[in-house]
Parts: sequence; structure tokens; C-alpha cells
Amino acid sequence: MEAERTLQDEELTGLADLAAQLRVDSIRCSTRAGSGHPTSSLSAADLLAVLVARHLRYDWSYPGNRANDHLIFSKGHASPLLYSVFRATGAISEQELLDCYRQSGSRLQGHPTPVLPWVDVATGSLGQGLPVGVGIALAGQYLDRVPFHVWVLCGDSETAEGSIWEALDKAGHFGLRNLTAIVDVNRFGQRGPTELEWDLDTYRRRVEAFGCHPIVVDGHDLAAIDDAFGRAREATGPTVVLARTVKGKGVPEIENRPDWHGKALEPDQAERAVQALGGVRKIRVAGPRPAAAPPAPAPAEERPELPRYEKGAKVATRNAYGDALRALGVRRDVVVLDGEVADSTRSDKFGEAYPDRFFEMFIAEQQLIAAAVGLRVRGYRPFAATFAAFLSRAYDFIRMAGISRADIALAGSHAGVEIGPDGPSQMGLEDLAALRAVHGSTVLYPSDAVSCAALVAAMVDCTGVSYLRTTRGKYPVLYDNGDEFPIGGSKLVRDGTDVTLIGAGVTVHNCLAAAEELAREGIDARVIDLYSVKPVDRKRLLEAVRDTGGRLVVVEDHYPQGGLGSAVLEELAGLAEPVRITHLAVRGLPGSGTPTQQMDMAGIGPHAIVSAARALA
Amino acid sequence: MEAERTLQDEELTGLADLAAQLRVDSIRCSTRAGSGHPTSSLSAADLLAVLVARHLRYDWSYPGNRANDHLIFSKGHASPLLYSVFRATGAISEQELLDCYRQSGSRLQGHPTPVLPWVDVATGSLGQGLPVGVGIALAGQYLDRVPFHVWVLCGDSETAEGSIWEALDKAGHFGLRNLTAIVDVNRFGQRGPTELEWDLDTYRRRVEAFGCHPIVVDGHDLAAIDDAFGRAREATGPTVVLARTVKGKGVPEIENRPDWHGKALEPDQAERAVQALGGVRKIRVAGPRPAAAPPAPAPAEERPELPRYEKGAKVATRNAYGDALRALGVRRDVVVLDGEVADSTRSDKFGEAYPDRFFEMFIAEQQLIAAAVGLRVRGYRPFAATFAAFLSRAYDFIRMAGISRADIALAGSHAGVEIGPDGPSQMGLEDLAALRAVHGSTVLYPSDAVSCAALVAAMVDCTGVSYLRTTRGKYPVLYDNGDEFPIGGSKLVRDGTDVTLIGAGVTVHNCLAAAEELAREGIDARVIDLYSVKPVDRKRLLEAVRDTGGRLVVVEDHYPQGGLGSAVLEELAGLAEPVRITHLAVRGLPGSGTPTQQMDMAGIGPHAIVSAARALA
Repeated sequence: MEAERTLQDEELTGLADLAAQLRVDSIRCSTRAGSGHPTSSLSAADLLAVLVARHLRYDWSYPGNRANDHLIFSKGHASPLLYSVFRATGAISEQELLDCYRQSGSRLQGHPTPVLPWVDVATGSLGQGLPVGVGIALAGQYLDRVPFHVWVLCGDSETAEGSIWEALDKAGHFGLRNLTAIVDVNRFGQRGPTELEWDLDTYRRRVEAFGCHPIVVDGHDLAAIDDAFGRAREATGPTVVLARTVKGKGVPEIENRPDWHGKALEPDQAERAVQALGGVRKIRVAGPRPAAAPPAPAPAEERPELPRYEKGAKVATRNAYGDALRALGVRRDVVVLDGEVADSTRSDKFGEAYPDRFFEMFIAEQQLIAAAVGLRVRGYRPFAATFAAFLSRAYDFIRMAGISRADIALAGSHAGVEIGPDGPSQMGLEDLAALRAVHGSTVLYPSDAVSCAALVAAMVDCTGVSYLRTTRGKYPVLYDNGDEFPIGGSKLVRDGTDVTLIGAGVTVHNCLAAAEELAREGIDARVIDLYSVKPVDRKRLLEAVRDTGGRLVVVEDHYPQGGLGSAVLEELAGLAEPVRITHLAVRGLPGSGTPTQQMDMAGIGPHAIVSAARALA
Repeated sequence: MEAERTLQDEELTGLADLAAQLRVDSIRCSTRAGSGHPTSSLSAADLLAVLVARHLRYDWSYPGNRANDHLIFSKGHASPLLYSVFRATGAISEQELLDCYRQSGSRLQGHPTPVLPWVDVATGSLGQGLPVGVGIALAGQYLDRVPFHVWVLCGDSETAEGSIWEALDKAGHFGLRNLTAIVDVNRFGQRGPTELEWDLDTYRRRVEAFGCHPIVVDGHDLAAIDDAFGRAREATGPTVVLARTVKGKGVPEIENRPDWHGKALEPDQAERAVQALGGVRKIRVAGPRPAAAPPAPAPAEERPELPRYEKGAKVATRNAYGDALRALGVRRDVVVLDGEVADSTRSDKFGEAYPDRFFEMFIAEQQLIAAAVGLRVRGYRPFAATFAAFLSRAYDFIRMAGISRADIALAGSHAGVEIGPDGPSQMGLEDLAALRAVHGSTVLYPSDAVSCAALVAAMVDCTGVSYLRTTRGKYPVLYDNGDEFPIGGSKLVRDGTDVTLIGAGVTVHNCLAAAEELAREGIDARVIDLYSVKPVDRKRLLEAVRDTGGRLVVVEDHYPQGGLGSAVLEELAGLAEPVRITHLAVRGLPGSGTPTQQMDMAGIGPHAIVSAARALA
């Protein structure tokens, strides 16, 4: 090890040259684009030069090599530096760097996304790269048992995000010796000094208190950086390299200035800067190689056997979620994450059966989602659950997972006013709107245990963010074991010709009760279980419009905006024939009460549905 | 001061009696309700007994007294304890406590909300009470200059939330000597031991590293607690009382057991427990009184004079936001908060003019929103802004602000693909869906500078959460200075009879360009600026349906789910006459590009609108 730490003079010169090239290229590409963050790239150029040349074990020609280290730019705005690194390694050409950065249709976007094969996750919303890195490191240390290392470049500004401390806390808790955060402490944020500026000692004490090992270093001293990274790799726990740097380092005109953030140099400035940095170089760096690639996690051990339920028996869908998860556990790629509510979401059923693939993230929903994304980066199929209401805590992380096209499965329990006495803080009443709006998401809301279990099984192979909404209380099993519930499908639970009642989840039961009542009045109501809220079963909706004279009642245990009602309306918007939809949803602010009281008061119970149908039919 | 700290034996006995009553009442009300969190209440009963009897300066008969201390239960699930405190002070009756807790229609909900006059904000989503407390303390120390103290009872589990560390960091940064967090370290969460259990030393080091003064105490030693609170009140900076407690303390059957969370005792258990605690008491506590009430902040100093713009001049709405904010600064109750992007959102225009009412929260969006809520608790009218995309980071806080009915104004800049080259991580494309779904929210999206300034002025008196979406780029001023833009209104920017084009924000300009083009083809298109996305101008929409044969094109720079299109569809759902709506929205995942390229590629530019209108008309 000692040998690796001592650099010869010519090696230092080589690193300095590489760092100069990274600076020059960061300036060139951003000036060509007319936008970008050169100064935030320049501060970290020395760090990256040393990392890539001497510590990052990466096969640039084969990013899929499972023995590769991981490099994440949590400070995604330093994309000029990242792409300049890619150019230095030969991953991309100089021409692509200069011609394509921030251009329409290019993969070299303003902030990195996984359209680039060397990028694990989209960053650019600060404070997310490190939490995702924790998930990747968890996979490496606890599941893959592969000695790759996760290197995350963080900005100093983003340490103001609580998510950074959720991440360091979990890194310490799990003793992630394969994780190193590199904090580029250049002391300036977007509009001036950061909160802590160059107070490295406070950073050090915070990092230490959160269970990680801090290594303070001059971020422009190549030998010191090299030593720090060597120690980080060999450490017995998670490390944080706190690098004191200068923003805009290397270009006197813009160096260490609070007013130089997020803008490209003018062409003449750029020319002077490139000259001062010794001009354009054509260095090709070849850093350390990874070990031989280990195999990917084996997906199916045996065929999962889904739980079976007796028709008519009362079972909560959250229970079926837990049962189905446990059944899916025969797949070795399935991992489950909890936000310290596994006994409520019923994730604990998996945890009891497969404790080695169950990760307790405690009450840290942002880290819960980020860890799921990180585990997915390593090929696992993560399921993360908490109360539907508390997924809102991680909404930015879910949004970014959508941009990363990360295949993660989420479950939100205790949806809607149905939860009863706990009050509005515990009720998911905006989750359908929020989750539907995530790019590429799938949103599911089963009404019974059989359909719930089938949908959980479908989620394991879903692309992108999938979301399952479950119900607290117990309701009758409606379907036969073995019935199929394709994503994008629906169930006709009762035929009828006068009016169509559309529900999902708990409101399907209210619709069925209403249909019984309507039948007694001579009104023949059709009932649709629209368990797939996104995508929606267009065919079934069109049939209903045709067969029941365009008379629809949509009922949801959710606020009126953006949920099930909107899903139906959006699907039928362009229809030529007349459609009249009465939309029942939770319009007031609920308080406490029993589930039945709550639903009746919100106007989504059987009585309200009967009235609405009667008025239409 | 010393005198206050030394308790006589009879005082200690009195406090012990009060604590026993709080325990007994916590058990009685939750057992009567059949649900609730008695064990989490019992651990903190001694803390609350001492606080209420000897330190909390509160006029229970006049909760509106601006000299009152503030008491926030960040661990909102300990509502039995809070309501038992209210009973002990005489704020509520024993009968209400026992008969109404968690009942339908009752104000004593499962988790506290401000329907109770002694409750500042809704809690129950963990990790939020302390950040809000920071906002209240900011108001006290920097604006009110009133010597009230903010006491926040936190659970130990919730310290896993990053938001707690955002709060302590800001408490330290602003030196909030009027803030004390009391952490009830009972070492058990919902489903087992917390991450740190009784490792008080790690808590202490974390608190200290984040700039607050830790005071470690045995949470069942009444004299020690009294001493700790005395020192907290006199401290020169923010304090955190770290109280080692026992969950379920006082009831041997359930004491210190990992399996006793969130459930009521059975009636026979409760009876035994009450007996063991010495039976039912009728203690009425009278704690210290606040000083005389100072006046509320004066709202209007002079009448704000809104900025004026030249028709046709190109002005970004985010600039108009900043201009209008600065104009509103003549109102002394207006305060502005920034998430370290004030030069982008243009909040800095206010900050330059009124630095004493401008609060920089750095990149900590959760704390940004929580501080706004806290400032509102003290009567201010806060405006908080960041990129529209990054409000998603604080979605749970916004959700809870809606439940609190907190009148806070939010602005999200850089909305949609219009931002250009920065890429999808920076684009707000789900904000309309998310914000519309918040209870009681108002959602505004102006197309030009004049309407933007008028809407900002309207937001200052808005009830609940109001949200303004602004655009990065510059577009022509469409309206005359002095035009009116009521919330819930819209503007007919071009009349027409063949088809109606509905836009908001930047798409209004695209609709106008499309209408020009359509006119050349002989198609007479109406254009509506639907700047009020929630509530929506139903009358204008009905007119458009009637006048243009039910042919509508809705265009939005947002994902298709839950945004402007859904707002229109939801409003027209029940209509008997046929309506055909073509909905143009961002359906793919955008990358980089110029604003025009981005909008064209997303199919929301003029060309796509023309095609859609042509197909309908």
C-alpha cells in the first residue's frame, strides 16, 4: 500500500497536466455551449485527475463490468468536468465534448443522466448523489460482496440538504467501508459564500459525529489528494474527504470570486484562460483496472408462488402486499427497504423470511428511496414502502428516479381517509397525483388481496418507477386466485347498462354496495375496478361510455386534483361522443373518525355514489 | 435565576403528581378511543410536567397573546400527552379529553392540528415540528424582538430525518437563543430499537457539531429537568435537551418494551395502570405567565405601488416576481425566504431592499418551507421561492402546511422545458400536479410581467398555500398596467369562434402565435390565458365550450398528468354538452436544447397547436 501512496515527480507532473486538461476542456465545452458551470468544475479538477488516474478502478470500455468502481457526481452541475473526464479516458471524443455539450438531442446534457453508460443516476437536484451512493455501497458490501468502491463528488453547498446527513448517518450505521464522499469545499454557492465557507473543522466534526471518517486535505495538493484517496480506499468504514478548494482554480480572472457561478466564460476570456492553463492537451488517461467481472445477481431461484385467498374473506391489501413480497423472495434479486413502519406496511413479512435482503432505513424517507435507486443500479429489484403520505417526503427523489429511469417499486400504505382516526397528517390524499406525474411511472391501486398480490408480482419486472397504493382496513376478497391483472388493465366487477361506477382500491367496495342499492331502485349500474391508474384501460372506459350512455361516476379516496378522476378524464378528453362524469373525491379537510364515518363524510361512501348515479341515470 | 432552579420537596411532589396525572389521562383517553400512542406519551410526561408548571410562559386563556411561549409537539403522535396537558391547564375539560379524543368531528384529532387554538401547526409527519419551530424563533429573535421561547418536543426516531439537521444547522447559523428542542430519547421506534438507542453521547456530539448547545438529562429526574430547562432558557444560543427516558414509563406492564408502540391499553390494563399511578387526579396547573402582549406586526406601511411594464417589451415573469416582491416590501409583514437561488428566482430584489426581512435558508428546501410556516405562525406573510423542480424536495412540508391552513406564498421559477439546456433535473414538470393536490391551495401561472406582478400582490392576502409558477425566459408583456387579475379569473386574449386554445404561462404565447397562423388558414381561434390554474375560471370555460362548439386545445409546459389539462377537464367533467379536448403536454423525457427547440420537440410549440386546432376545427 505504501508504494501506491508515494508519487514520483514525473507522476505529479503528469497529474498536473491531466488536471490542466480537465480545466481547459471544462472551459472549452461550456464556453462553446454558452452556458454551464466552469468554476464549479475547476475547483474539483485536481481531485478528479488524481481519482481517475490512480484510484478509480474502472473499465471505460465496459461500463457494465460489475467489478467497476462507481463514480457519482452528486454536484451534477459540474458536468463539464465529468464529461472532460470521459474525454480524457477516451469514453467520448473531443469532438463530442465540444460540439454536443448542452445541445438538443445530445447525450451530454446540462446535468448528467444515465443516457450515458458511465452515469449511474441522474443528478442535478443537489444532495441526491450521496444517498444513492449509499445504496450502491450497501449492495456491494452486503449483497454483491464485490470489492468495488463508490466515489461520490459532492459540493459544499449541498451539505445544507438534510439528505446528505441521512446518507452519512446510514453510511456509518451500515459501516460502508466501500463508500467515499469527496466534498469540494470551494466555499461559494450560487449567490455567495456558503454557510460554513472554509470552516473545515466544523465539517470534520459533523462528519465524525455522523459515524464517518473525515480526511481533511488541500484539494489542490496532488500528492495529498493521492494520499487521502489511498487512505479512503483502505479505511474500515465510510470516509469523507473534505477538500479545501478554490472555485475557478487556475483561471485568475474568475478564481475565488463569489460572482462567478453557473455561467460560461466569454470566448475571449476562455481563450485567455486556456492559454494560461498551457493550452489544449490530448492526454489519454488509463487508470487502474477493476478485477474480473463477477456475475450479475441471479434473478429467479424458483418460480414465486403467490399467496392465495378465500373469496369473500376480509383481507387488507397491505397484508397481501407483505404476503406477495415474501413469496417473491425466492427471487434473489428482490430486496426490500423499510422506513421504520414495516409492521404497518407489512414489509416485515419479507424481512422475517429474508433478513439479509431487508434494509431498515429508519425514518428517513429520502434515503429510503435513494437506497432503492442505488440497489437498482447494482441490478437488484428493490421494493420500498412507507405510508402513502410519507412518500411525499421523498418526492424529489422519486422525481429524479423517474429521470434516471430507475426500476424501483414503491408501496404506500394507509391511503386516504379510510385510515380512520389518525387524522389528515397520516392520510395519503395527494399521492396518486404526485406519483402519476412522475416521468414513466406506473400507478396501481388494488381493491382486494388477490389483485394486490398479482400486481406486486407484476411490479418486480416493471420498467421505471412503479407505485402500489394499499389500504389499511380489511375488505372482502373479490377475485379468484389465478385471475390475471395486467398492468394497464381493469376488471369489470359488475355489468350494467344505465350508468358506470368507477372505483379503485377501497372505493370499488363502495361502488359495489352502491350498485346493489341502485339495483333495488331499478338502476342497472356497471362497476369497474380501475386498479391500473396509470396506464389506464382505455378500451374498458370506451366500452363503458358506449354501453352506459356516457354516464360515469368516478369515486376516489383522494383529493379531487390529479388522481383517479383526472386519469379517467385525461383518457376520455378527445372523445367525440358526449360523456358526463360525476367525480366524487375528498373535498374537505378530514379529521378523525372511523373509516366508514370518514368515507361517508367525504362523500365517497355508498350513499353518495347512489345519489350521484341516480342524478346521472 | 439560581432561586428558580432549586426546587423544594413539596414542589417536587407537586410536579410528580402532575406527571402522574398526565400519564393517567394519556392512558384514559387513548384506551377510551381504542387507539393512540400512550407509551410515547408516558416517556415524556415528566418533561412536560416540569415544562408546563415551571417554564412555559403561557396564557392559556388567551392563546393569541403574542408574548406567549410556543409549545410544539414535533412528535405529534404523543397527542394524548399534549391533550392531557391542555386538560391540566384548564384549556379543555376532562370530559372533552375522555369523550372526544379521536372521535369523528372532534378537535382532539389523532395528531394535533391548529383547529385547536393552542396548536401552532399540524404535526404527525415526523421531523417537521422542529423546522417550523426554527421559523417561529427566527420571527421572535429577528423581527418581533419579543422574549418568548420556543419549546419543541421531538421524538428520538425523528432525528433520523434530515430535516431535523437542517433545522439544527439553521438554529445554530442564526444563533436562535429562544429555541429549545427537547428530545425524548426513549430508544424505541415503531418497530424496535432506534438507530442510536440510548447513545446520548452520539446525540450530544451531533447536536454540538451542528452549532447547538446540548444538555443531557435524565428525563425522569424532575429536579434535573427543571435545571436543564432553566439553563436552556438562559442560554445564549439554541439548546437541545437530550432526555434519556423510558418508553411507557410508570406502567410496569408496558414499560421499556419494543413491542408497545402506537396501541392503546386494553380497558383492564388501563385500569391497573391508573391504579398503579395513584388513580385519577384533578390537578389544575398554573405555570408562569407571559409578559404583556406586544402588538402584532403592522401590515401596511403604505400602499404598495406595483411595477409597471411597457406592453410588448420582453420581460421574464420571474423578474416581475422580484419586482413585485420589492414593491410589497412597504408592508412590514412581508418576509422573503430563499433557498440559495435568489438571483435565479429574483427574490434578491427584495433582499437588496429589505435585508432585515430576507432570510437565506441555503440549499435546504424543507427548512425553507418550514421557516415560512413558522413565520406565518407569528403573523407574517412569507414568500418562499426556489426552482419549481426543487419545491418537490419539500412536498411533505407543503402538504402539512396545507393541513395547517398556513397562509404561505410559494414561487417556483424555471418551470417546464422552457428553461432550455439545463436538462430535466432542473425542469419543474410535475409541480402543477403536486401543488394542485395540496389541500386548500391556490395555483397561479402568469404569462406576462403585468399579470405576474398583480398575482404576487394578490398572494399576499391569500388563504392557505398559494403557489406561483414563473418562467425563466423573457416574453412580451401582454397586458396593460392596472388590468385586473383576480384569483379564479382568466383573460380572453383573443376572441374567436372556431376553436379555443387554452394556455397558461409560456404556452399562452405559443397559443397566440398559433392563432395568428390559424387565422391565415381561415380558422378563427379564441385564446384564453388560464393564469389561475386553481381555482379555475369555470364561467370562461363554459363560454368557450358554447361559443367554439366544444372544441378546446389545452397546452401546458408540464407532464400530462394532473396539470393544466386536468384542471380544465375536472371543471368540465359534469357537462351535458359534448366537449372535445386535445391536450398538448410534455410526454417524453426532455434533454438539453434551446427553449424553442425544447417546446417544439415536446409538442407544445405553435406548430403542434396549429395541427391540433386544425384537426378539431
